[in-house]
Amino acid sequence: MPTLATAVVSADATAVLITVLLSLTVIYLASRLGGEICARFDLPPVLGELLAGSVVGISILHLLVFPEGGATAEDSLIMQAVQPFLHLSPAVWEATFSAQGEVVSVLSELGVIILLFEIGLESNLQELLRVGAQAVVVAVIGVTVPFVAGTLGLIYLFHVPTIAAIFAGAALTATSIGITAKVLAELQQLNSSEGQVILGAAVLDDILGIIILAVVASLVKTGEVEISQVVYLIVGAAVFLVGSVLVGRLLSPWFVGLVSNMKTRGSLLIVSLLLMLVLSVIGAAIQLEAILGAFTAGLILSETNKQQELEEQVIPLADFFVPIFFVCVGAKTDFSVFNPAIPANREGLVLAGFLVVVAIVGKVASGLGVGWGTDKLNRLAVGVGMIPRGEVGLVFAAAGASSGALSEALDAGIVVMVILTTFLAPPMLRFVFPSRSATPVPAPEPNA
Amino acid sequence: MPTLATAVVSADATAVLITVLLSLTVIYLASRLGGEICARFDLPPVLGELLAGSVVGISILHLLVFPEGGATAEDSLIMQAVQPFLHLSPAVWEATFSAQGEVVSVLSELGVIILLFEIGLESNLQELLRVGAQAVVVAVIGVTVPFVAGTLGLIYLFHVPTIAAIFAGAALTATSIGITAKVLAELQQLNSSEGQVILGAAVLDDILGIIILAVVASLVKTGEVEISQVVYLIVGAAVFLVGSVLVGRLLSPWFVGLVSNMKTRGSLLIVSLLLMLVLSVIGAAIQLEAILGAFTAGLILSETNKQQELEEQVIPLADFFVPIFFVCVGAKTDFSVFNPAIPANREGLVLAGFLVVVAIVGKVASGLGVGWGTDKLNRLAVGVGMIPRGEVGLVFAAAGASSGALSEALDAGIVVMVILTTFLAPPMLRFVFPSRSATPVPAPEPNA
Repeated sequence: MPTLATAVVSADATAVLITVLLSLTVIYLASRLGGEICARFDLPPVLGELLAGSVVGISILHLLVFPEGGATAEDSLIMQAVQPFLHLSPAVWEATFSAQGEVVSVLSELGVIILLFEIGLESNLQELLRVGAQAVVVAVIGVTVPFVAGTLGLIYLFHVPTIAAIFAGAALTATSIGITAKVLAELQQLNSSEGQVILGAAVLDDILGIIILAVVASLVKTGEVEISQVVYLIVGAAVFLVGSVLVGRLLSPWFVGLVSNMKTRGSLLIVSLLLMLVLSVIGAAIQLEAILGAFTAGLILSETNKQQELEEQVIPLADFFVPIFFVCVGAKTDFSVFNPAIPANREGLVLAGFLVVVAIVGKVASGLGVGWGTDKLNRLAVGVGMIPRGEVGLVFAAAGASSGALSEALDAGIVVMVILTTFLAPPMLRFVFPSRSATPVPAPEPNA
Repeated sequence: MPTLATAVVSADATAVLITVLLSLTVIYLASRLGGEICARFDLPPVLGELLAGSVVGISILHLLVFPEGGATAEDSLIMQAVQPFLHLSPAVWEATFSAQGEVVSVLSELGVIILLFEIGLESNLQELLRVGAQAVVVAVIGVTVPFVAGTLGLIYLFHVPTIAAIFAGAALTATSIGITAKVLAELQQLNSSEGQVILGAAVLDDILGIIILAVVASLVKTGEVEISQVVYLIVGAAVFLVGSVLVGRLLSPWFVGLVSNMKTRGSLLIVSLLLMLVLSVIGAAIQLEAILGAFTAGLILSETNKQQELEEQVIPLADFFVPIFFVCVGAKTDFSVFNPAIPANREGLVLAGFLVVVAIVGKVASGLGVGWGTDKLNRLAVGVGMIPRGEVGLVFAAAGASSGALSEALDAGIVVMVILTTFLAPPMLRFVFPSRSATPVPAPEPNA
């Protein structure tokens, strides 16, 4: 269709490059400032990256704004800053803004993909399988309690229509595996029993979230649930996860042999990333998420004798990409929903109060499903680890807004709930996990 | 301008991510296959990446094609492969192809930026200044001889109009700093005296190339040379390079202190990349190139006591990004200009024969400017190091095609010259530099 291509105004290649480089400059400045400030106050640096992102983003400074939220080049300070030098025509200016946004968004997606790859690489498949049953219990409780309590509460306490209440209840079930895993890694708790239960449950929750979103979306659209789609997603997820791990374990000796025989620089890293890319594409293509594929690839490679060497090389790559993700999550979060001057927000804030309580209590309750019998676990830590909704919650909110099933107030309430659980979870996690980092004076263990 | 934004068809975010991940899969497969095959034949791996890129690109397999060359989604096998799964509307499909192309192009630009940053980091400012005078001689001879010989030859031997001949002569002056530096690094010759002369001369040649392009472009457009623009570029380049290095040296103790006090993971890498980003943006903004800024940033940091630690972290990042650049250069190179069935190509191939000879002889002659007196240098190696035109040559060819000053045949001739010098230089460099890599049987030094 050559006619279509000519109808689209092309972005200016030099301008796209300069604006992307400027966006990265803003992102790294924000990530360092935010991260360092939080580190000084003994808070997880990722919270600082999220907060600094919201400072440079759509809520305050408008340095990092994205066309997907309906913003135009006019709204972006970076676009305004380059225009006097580059003299782009208005249409090219707009197309450049759009292209720059696409590029930064993909870099941010690569950030969460590489984060989950690194987390998989640092995890222990044996340990994950050992705590598998507990992770299932946590995931199921953490999905059921908020969903039922949220939906019923909205219907009976706030007289919200049934379908809208079900949608909001569904939004309460998500867990952001990215934020949870990053905080656990920062607290050096990834390989504790609690950490592995949270991680396993967060992976399952991600899959449950996708299934629930599909169910609710078809309920909103057609009024009934497409059973075939649900079965497809469940079977697909199970076959994908189990199949990848089994095939991966069979092929990993061959993989190690292949890499050992290669002569060019960076072969171990690139061949490993190829596995990550292939599983990410398959994950995304069967309507799961790319990050689940990346996590699985990391898990497979964590079993090989190249794990240590590979991890050393993945760390700088993660240091480059991961801050882009967290700063962008902050930048895309619109804090104007907290503004009580907007009428829909006032009602939304009341609903949000209820949703936040259910969101936190429901996930903390999920921790009660573990650690019975001889297996002593920090139940509160497990529950708190499931709290952040993060980008998964934002997907629900966006789907809700575009479906038309939610009132403006309920949509604002969901967004507030997502923001608060996302931003509150890192300091809460820091609080429930005793510090393992080296401090000048060794702090005594708090009474468990 | 909200009306413009709505007029542009948006790409599908999931589809952009999947197609970018697939493009990266193709790129890494190609880079490993090509690199490994070349390494077995004792050729520089970067030649393999370029060749493998041209196999997967517009010339043969059409897996990796770019909208900038006029291709549509229909021409891309990756876009055709995802369409049955994603069911995008034709307009969204086209917009997704365009967005995916923008993203991969920016990743490839980041590749050459990070490559030059790494090269700067591995270089030695003292040594570069010591050989500075020789580098100036090499650059000036390597620009003058091909320009004069090419222009006069085209006018008197081939009866090409004067302005077109000047343009083609100008295209002969470029040196691709990226390819030259990469091959030198692969041969472990970056820090030899020859390597530093070539590197210094290639940096100067990059700047001379930008000035010459500006001169020739204004000559083609207005018939006269804009002196103010030329003065601006020369003064700008001098102030930028000298100023960055001087200010950088003053600030680097402060930089080391700052990084040492930071508590978050990856601070050294990110703060260093911030310097790279800022200098790249300034370089691009004053109409030089981003890569010159990145090289300068690396050079500044190479003087600090963090050099070693930083280099270890930059290597995996370069391993990730740099192959994207070389595979994309290959993929964007259209080998159909070699097809003698197209009439313009036949005349073009004759012109190309002349241009290639001038291109190679002119640059080899530049090596004669060094190594006189006590300073014994491998003159042939220096001259050969200046041969590849690479992406700089492609910029000239593209500018020539769009200016309308060149006949179709002359344009094809320039493209063939760029392709041949780019692809021939790596094996030639391999040939003139004795191997330093560890081989099972230590080879005796060839007679110098």
